[in-house]
Amino acid sequence: MTIVETKYFQIEDVIKLDSGKELKNVQVAYETYGTLNENKDNAILLLHALTGDAHAAGYHKGDEKPGWWDDMVGSGKAFDTDKYFVICSNMLGGCKGTTGPSSINPETGKVYGIQFPVFTTEDVVKVQKKLIDHLGVKKLCVAGGSMGGMQAMEWAITHKDMVTHVIIIASTSRLSAQAIAFNAVGRNAITSDPNWNNGNYYDGEKPEKGLAIARMVGHITYLCQESMHSKFGRRFQNKEAPDFHFDIDFEVESYLAHQGQVFVDRFDANSYLYITKSVDYFDLAKKYGSLENAFSETDAKFLIMCFSSDWLFPSYQSKEIVNALMRNKKDVSFCEIESPCGHDAFLLEYETQTKIIKSFLTKEQK
Amino acid sequence: MTIVETKYFQIEDVIKLDSGKELKNVQVAYETYGTLNENKDNAILLLHALTGDAHAAGYHKGDEKPGWWDDMVGSGKAFDTDKYFVICSNMLGGCKGTTGPSSINPETGKVYGIQFPVFTTEDVVKVQKKLIDHLGVKKLCVAGGSMGGMQAMEWAITHKDMVTHVIIIASTSRLSAQAIAFNAVGRNAITSDPNWNNGNYYDGEKPEKGLAIARMVGHITYLCQESMHSKFGRRFQNKEAPDFHFDIDFEVESYLAHQGQVFVDRFDANSYLYITKSVDYFDLAKKYGSLENAFSETDAKFLIMCFSSDWLFPSYQSKEIVNALMRNKKDVSFCEIESPCGHDAFLLEYETQTKIIKSFLTKEQK
Repeated sequence: MTIVETKYFQIEDVIKLDSGKELKNVQVAYETYGTLNENKDNAILLLHALTGDAHAAGYHKGDEKPGWWDDMVGSGKAFDTDKYFVICSNMLGGCKGTTGPSSINPETGKVYGIQFPVFTTEDVVKVQKKLIDHLGVKKLCVAGGSMGGMQAMEWAITHKDMVTHVIIIASTSRLSAQAIAFNAVGRNAITSDPNWNNGNYYDGEKPEKGLAIARMVGHITYLCQESMHSKFGRRFQNKEAPDFHFDIDFEVESYLAHQGQVFVDRFDANSYLYITKSVDYFDLAKKYGSLENAFSETDAKFLIMCFSSDWLFPSYQSKEIVNALMRNKKDVSFCEIESPCGHDAFLLEYETQTKIIKSFLTKEQK
Repeated sequence: MTIVETKYFQIEDVIKLDSGKELKNVQVAYETYGTLNENKDNAILLLHALTGDAHAAGYHKGDEKPGWWDDMVGSGKAFDTDKYFVICSNMLGGCKGTTGPSSINPETGKVYGIQFPVFTTEDVVKVQKKLIDHLGVKKLCVAGGSMGGMQAMEWAITHKDMVTHVIIIASTSRLSAQAIAFNAVGRNAITSDPNWNNGNYYDGEKPEKGLAIARMVGHITYLCQESMHSKFGRRFQNKEAPDFHFDIDFEVESYLAHQGQVFVDRFDANSYLYITKSVDYFDLAKKYGSLENAFSETDAKFLIMCFSSDWLFPSYQSKEIVNALMRNKKDVSFCEIESPCGHDAFLLEYETQTKIIKSFLTKEQK
């Protein structure tokens, strides 16, 4: 059992955001696994999804559960710490050690709340770049699932001289209207909770009910019809027949209620607002005129993976990325993995992903 | 322009509910179009969906918009009022004239609220049967989309001597775990709104925010990825670029917010709780041992229609009904209509539905 610790890096420069606003005294929480080599070119930066954090692998002292991608990171694993220096940082706007809306605004001495500036995926990568430079990394692979894949694309485009390999899993170059709609419902649930109090709740009751509802909606989109059917079917929770009241009747209701409840204990509602907004804004085709244009200058080798039952970021969106790269004659590998696990598959189908990622990383090292 | 009026029928008998509880003094709001013939066998009972009401067709005096299925009901239309006596009633538990949680409890003289008993689809049909008997109808066709299709199935099974034709559109014999999950989110949004106040809000502020969120979630499931993309894409609302704030950015957000807002003006939050619960409970296979058993005694002719892009009640669920009827050697017609409109197609694709329904009703009259 590998014990790891989260470390902290204080950025001295001011971060200039896409909105025109600036952020000072940004702190980044991060973890590293493995060792940076002499050439400083064996780094892999892992980019977490919506509610992830810097703790990708290993155990924090006393914890029973390891980091969120522990199945994929370690000696002999997909991201092999015997070979690679693996880094993961909590994203800008998060609530797990990196500066976000729950941090103290140095200008006022008070918690930012919704005075925190709205940021973009580009801004998130700006902060990550400061960390990578701080660690002395010269060349790196970037890898992420879901929203993390968006950041990986942004890295490949903006820092093409540094990025050698890009692994994009269950991701998209832009959200569908339906995916924006689900995020909008989640944000509405939070801001409709009176405890949200226009973002000022850090001294009092938190908007737990609203955040729990946002999480429930999210969980439906991370699974799929098939996986929900096989997990829960129409089984009643601890009974054979309905109770004719409004408590929980079905197992699936109990699951969602549980997911909502545990989430409010570990996540900040304002972070949820900001991060989903940054995801909604991400749109490479709009920014660069077309997806083909977006990738025209990249030098990296790409691995794109998606999952057959992912309906939040469906396979066709990964294929759009692949096609844009192919039209640019880039080095691109693509795999659509048959899986009944929906969008969450990138956190679950680690055996298949491990084979493909190892092959991708090894092949290119020849 | 046909002016119609909603009529009211007071049920004298006590309604014994599936839960074992009883309801007294149940009132039913209904409308009729066309004329009952001498044999009293030309009736068609329309069964509305989750948020529908008795006003299926024609105009209420002064209204700019006609009833919810006006495209389908009238002289020469799918449900041809020159030939048929068309009836539509607001369902038990509704909030448009039929007794529901917003009605006065005769035992206490106060509004029921959540003292209203939880009811089932079977109970809904019991109340409809009282109305049909009151109107003197001897034989009838039952027709409904979505939840209305469930009631149509219940009619065909429970009143096989009366029902000659059954039209089931975009429906299912039981909700998937995913569909129950969406209903659970909607109910949670309502009951999490402090104005819900355990169902006692009729004298004060209503749980409008919670009900609006429930409606927003619902609307996402009534459309589909394709229809949301063609309606809204990723267009910004009245602007070219994001504002970097938490107001509405995208057209799809504006649409959902609007749908939520207009809904709270016309619907009761407690009705939403009760009706979705009755839909979650509906499960013919569980009740009868199998779907095949459920239909074994029916005598009616069936028309089943579904829509290719409906992911709330997907086509496979309609095919399960068709297969169960076929194994019973029943007279069944089936049509899966190619449509980009999602679940809502039963309210929109009236030209195709009209052709199929007219053919179904006419053929059988020979």
